[in-house]
Amino acid sequence: MIIVYLAIACGIIAVLYGIVTSSQVLKSPAGDARMQDIAAAIQEGAKAYLGRQYTTIAIVGVVVAAVLFLTLGTVSLAGFLIGAVLSGVAGYVGMHISVRANVRTAEAARGSLQGGLTLAFRSGAITGMLVAGLGLLSIAGIFWYLVDLAGVAPNDREVIEALTALAFGASLISIFARLGGGIFTKAADVGADLVGKVEAGIPEDDPRNPAVIADNVGDNVGDCAGMAADLFETYVVTIGLTMVSIALLVKASSAELLTLMSVPLLVGGVCIITSIIGTYFVRLGSKGSIMGALYKGFWVTVALSVLAIYGVFQYAFGDLNAVIGGAGFLEGGTDTLTTEAVLGAQAIGTQAFTALDLFYCMMIGLAVTGLLVWITEYYTGTAYRPVKSIAKASETGHGTNVIQGLAISLESTALPTLVIVVAVIATYQLAGIIGVAFAATALLALAGMVVALDAYGPVTDNAGGIAEMAGLPDDVRHRTDALDAVGNTTKAVTKGYAIGSAALAALVLFGAYTTDLKEFFPDVTVDFSLSNPYVIVGLLLGALLPYLFGAFGMTAVGRAAGSVVQDVRDQFRDNPGIMQGTSRPNYGRTVDIVTRAAIKEMIIPSLLPVVSPIAVYYIVTAVAGQAQGFASLGAMLLGVIVSGLFVAISMTSGGGAWDNAKKYIEDGNHGGKGSEAHKAAVTGDTVGDPYKDTAGPAVNPMIKITNIVALLLLAALAGSAG
Amino acid sequence: MIIVYLAIACGIIAVLYGIVTSSQVLKSPAGDARMQDIAAAIQEGAKAYLGRQYTTIAIVGVVVAAVLFLTLGTVSLAGFLIGAVLSGVAGYVGMHISVRANVRTAEAARGSLQGGLTLAFRSGAITGMLVAGLGLLSIAGIFWYLVDLAGVAPNDREVIEALTALAFGASLISIFARLGGGIFTKAADVGADLVGKVEAGIPEDDPRNPAVIADNVGDNVGDCAGMAADLFETYVVTIGLTMVSIALLVKASSAELLTLMSVPLLVGGVCIITSIIGTYFVRLGSKGSIMGALYKGFWVTVALSVLAIYGVFQYAFGDLNAVIGGAGFLEGGTDTLTTEAVLGAQAIGTQAFTALDLFYCMMIGLAVTGLLVWITEYYTGTAYRPVKSIAKASETGHGTNVIQGLAISLESTALPTLVIVVAVIATYQLAGIIGVAFAATALLALAGMVVALDAYGPVTDNAGGIAEMAGLPDDVRHRTDALDAVGNTTKAVTKGYAIGSAALAALVLFGAYTTDLKEFFPDVTVDFSLSNPYVIVGLLLGALLPYLFGAFGMTAVGRAAGSVVQDVRDQFRDNPGIMQGTSRPNYGRTVDIVTRAAIKEMIIPSLLPVVSPIAVYYIVTAVAGQAQGFASLGAMLLGVIVSGLFVAISMTSGGGAWDNAKKYIEDGNHGGKGSEAHKAAVTGDTVGDPYKDTAGPAVNPMIKITNIVALLLLAALAGSAG
Repeated sequence: MIIVYLAIACGIIAVLYGIVTSSQVLKSPAGDARMQDIAAAIQEGAKAYLGRQYTTIAIVGVVVAAVLFLTLGTVSLAGFLIGAVLSGVAGYVGMHISVRANVRTAEAARGSLQGGLTLAFRSGAITGMLVAGLGLLSIAGIFWYLVDLAGVAPNDREVIEALTALAFGASLISIFARLGGGIFTKAADVGADLVGKVEAGIPEDDPRNPAVIADNVGDNVGDCAGMAADLFETYVVTIGLTMVSIALLVKASSAELLTLMSVPLLVGGVCIITSIIGTYFVRLGSKGSIMGALYKGFWVTVALSVLAIYGVFQYAFGDLNAVIGGAGFLEGGTDTLTTEAVLGAQAIGTQAFTALDLFYCMMIGLAVTGLLVWITEYYTGTAYRPVKSIAKASETGHGTNVIQGLAISLESTALPTLVIVVAVIATYQLAGIIGVAFAATALLALAGMVVALDAYGPVTDNAGGIAEMAGLPDDVRHRTDALDAVGNTTKAVTKGYAIGSAALAALVLFGAYTTDLKEFFPDVTVDFSLSNPYVIVGLLLGALLPYLFGAFGMTAVGRAAGSVVQDVRDQFRDNPGIMQGTSRPNYGRTVDIVTRAAIKEMIIPSLLPVVSPIAVYYIVTAVAGQAQGFASLGAMLLGVIVSGLFVAISMTSGGGAWDNAKKYIEDGNHGGKGSEAHKAAVTGDTVGDPYKDTAGPAVNPMIKITNIVALLLLAALAGSAG
Repeated sequence: MIIVYLAIACGIIAVLYGIVTSSQVLKSPAGDARMQDIAAAIQEGAKAYLGRQYTTIAIVGVVVAAVLFLTLGTVSLAGFLIGAVLSGVAGYVGMHISVRANVRTAEAARGSLQGGLTLAFRSGAITGMLVAGLGLLSIAGIFWYLVDLAGVAPNDREVIEALTALAFGASLISIFARLGGGIFTKAADVGADLVGKVEAGIPEDDPRNPAVIADNVGDNVGDCAGMAADLFETYVVTIGLTMVSIALLVKASSAELLTLMSVPLLVGGVCIITSIIGTYFVRLGSKGSIMGALYKGFWVTVALSVLAIYGVFQYAFGDLNAVIGGAGFLEGGTDTLTTEAVLGAQAIGTQAFTALDLFYCMMIGLAVTGLLVWITEYYTGTAYRPVKSIAKASETGHGTNVIQGLAISLESTALPTLVIVVAVIATYQLAGIIGVAFAATALLALAGMVVALDAYGPVTDNAGGIAEMAGLPDDVRHRTDALDAVGNTTKAVTKGYAIGSAALAALVLFGAYTTDLKEFFPDVTVDFSLSNPYVIVGLLLGALLPYLFGAFGMTAVGRAAGSVVQDVRDQFRDNPGIMQGTSRPNYGRTVDIVTRAAIKEMIIPSLLPVVSPIAVYYIVTAVAGQAQGFASLGAMLLGVIVSGLFVAISMTSGGGAWDNAKKYIEDGNHGGKGSEAHKAAVTGDTVGDPYKDTAGPAVNPMIKITNIVALLLLAALAGSAG
């Protein structure tokens, strides 16, 4: 239990870091009255939106909670509520800091680039450490309460159910937050661009544009709050389900299990500390490269994490060559096993492995993180072929810009897939499915740092907006622009990272599904072989989900952006003083319109992954019996990741590449701002917006929800059957 | 054997229809000298391109043929060569008729809409019947030669190898033809539009545009020859592999097997006859609806096919309640079977079934065809929500047009997937994997009619171009435009149909793979369960292929279109007389540039599906042993269809919707031609072009090649091991 205590202590440190750093950030000067005015409007809009969003989610949440309570009981209800509430808190606090750091970053950028960078990054780090810290505290807290206080065995059904429900709570809230926030931010962004840049010919962030505040609000509620909820979910699902799969798969003594299940928690804990240390290394070097400064912090964290994780393993296991797991899983003994069971056991990965094997798996997880970051940088950075090729294609018009962007978005899926495939093979060879789970845990352990890099983005984006609107000098705007440009890449990094972890987690979740199935329904023989057509049916239906979900997301943004365009046109027509700069637009009205549109549009698609697995199970069971129902449902879980991985990566990388191709042209290439190439690049950027910030990132929580709903469905069916 | 003779007779009738109708078409008046001049330029360009394309393919083909001969022997070599040559013939003859029918259609449209429609459709029907007829003759001819003349058993390895090699030959040629033709047609089209419509401000098909002949050549080499090769491949693979799977899976007497294997052939045969009859029903009704006229022909064919297929079943089986197949497959008897083998046998679908069950499966196949046609019409027709929503989104600019188009393209995958899923479940319940195969055969039996509808498109497209370039009166151009507009939908129909059949065929091919595996490597136990990570690895790598392939295709079009733009700009600059209409552009130079670009760009992506399965097998085998190598390879085959189905449908339907949204605006909606909405719609159309005519349709042969290469690899490995 000491390991768990240590992990909890690390979680508390993360929260303390958040509180202390918040007060530092809030103490910095908040600029002049005009800047504070603008910031206040953004704060008000963001608060109002999140308030309404969480109220709506709460209604859905209460219904789901009631169903959970009735089917699965109190423990599941408690887990669900903790996950749901903390996911909301992570998002809300992230937004709260972000809308205050923006104006302070603009003010600090008056002084120096380093000043702006430090402030923006610190505020991102607050969100990052809170996401990781609250995530860790929720898992470790539940584990501590049940195992230490309530005295149940670490692999007791109650522990498994509580952690699964915790993950479900986090996932359910996060898909709403990701999608609602994503629709808000991109509807405002696209709408503001269309009517401002294209129709009225005024620059981005011009205060005469009535949608400009909505656009800035969107950065905070989508890119900050939505992202934080998403990564909180990813953290909780990955580390929580790693523990669940240890509990399900490894048969060992309670003491051994306790150690093994606690290690992921402490790894999460120490990596919060290394992430906090890393944040202090984010400093501009002699070349003044902002990306370089951020990377310095990131790589310091990675290097320290290697050492720290080694320390955790030494501390927890003593002898790294100690054998863990193994054939103990095959309870019946080999004599009575059918070929299928042997294959199944091998597949679930019950070969014996040592602590050192698990350590290597974690190193592979860290390597995957590094590679995914590097690949994303390659596909979305302005220094490399992909972005340059889109910028070049813009010379021949809107059409070729979009064609090349789509080509890059398709291509960008290849390297991450290969990295994931190699990681799966290597970790599986080392320690079976538990090895895969440990790699995923190591990947997520760096979430504090990765979220910090991401949450930095919306702050600088807002800072630029405020600098423009408040009429700060050009050199300040140049600094905020420079800070903002790398934000596009760091934002893309987090999304690739989240979906990459989802691919590893999917294997673990499928392992949990099959193990649960055997435990709950020992008499039902389910054939998960690819030669079973019901498996193909499940794969196809699962693969459809990301496409349908993407269609909903894209349509929602298009429709909501249309209502923004209409409102802004109306404002310009009814109040000609706006364009002359003599009267102030009604920013609040536009914010309100986007708010209503986003809330309305997020509900149906968010429920898709909740309802689909249940529908598939019942329909196939009705047609072909329960065994095939389970087969289709299981295959659906893998279909959704096999297709979702590609949909999500292509959308997020492609969108980032389009955005930076525009920035690359604005830097004076291919004719620079105002050229025909620039106009084409603006079109590409507009297309990429809902791709990268609405539909693409929401695929990650969608995959998880589908999987967790399937696990809960099994438990509920077993409960009603027993 | 009489059934096979009858099938061969039907194939000969198809060829005779082609010859007779060709002479009718060629006898119609070919217009004035100016028109004939233009047509001659198109003919020359198309002939030159196809000549070079087939020469290049021949080089690859000779290498592949040598490898096949060395690893698998003479029978495979012969099958491969027949498939390859006839695929080439189908494409070449289709192009040959198409480039002669275009000018005659323009001339006939001077007289009346019905005249133009009849001529264009007849020429399409020639291609359609040749595709089906040659396909049928090749399969039936090989079967007849081996079983009747050489006297081998119908399920002898030689029959299986010859049919598999035939399918491989057809597939290999068709992927090159589809992709090369697709790159040619879209590079010319996009290039011509960019530099003509956008830069120079001259209308489509304006004779001053040096790329205009290349654009018209492209319709013939891509949409006609490439499509014909593709559908020839689909026909041969589907019907050939249906026979192979009967030979592999059904254990019955030689006489029974002969009957069962011949039925797909005769079904193909009688449906050629019903398709020919259907062509005579393509007549304008009182409302003058062109789509209505085409549908009349289609539905007459469907209705007659129901009766004809019933007749075939009555004739072949006598008693429709006769039991076929069944537990005979389980050679070892149930006593010695492991659970896995029982599951495997159930999964491959060896329950007993009757002839009536198979008839029902064929009816389901026909229903799928009808539903896919209807769904494609809904997503790409100007009368329905999807196209209208894209047209409406064009009002707010290029960006929203593309966003809505992408949303529709994602959405358009849902209904076809559901149709396929329901068809798989229903046919599998009726007659196992053989039932699925029979449904796929019925789907493909209508290929003659479906290809006729499709091949009609490029003829009318060209006719419009010739009318414009030759300065024919406005009312002629209006008629050719009206004929052309429905071509967008019929072209999308064929692609949806081909990929839909691929999804059904994939199950059959996977069945053949697993059965071959058991036969060739009885000692290797392969675990195809989803809980085997090597299965996931295979699924992910398979799913990657369509993305990577799509990226290659899109990039190739972008790059080749860029060289067209460059050439046209050079011509305008060096010869100012072109724009003044005083001197003739150098059409041939542009055709030559596109030819070289298309040939160069088609090679690497076409080899991707040939090389990937071999690489995956050897790499995974090296890491984890042969059993896992087979598991990954098998999973790859399903990964490529699970992802390819969605990539292909989204690209082809989305592209068709973009194209018709532009046409819908040109019909006077949302401001009509020249409005801002129209400009945005032109962008969408440009983006949709490589989507729907290059990358999307080539996914179909790609899926088949991956599968067939895997089958050949098994045979080669078994040969070298034995």
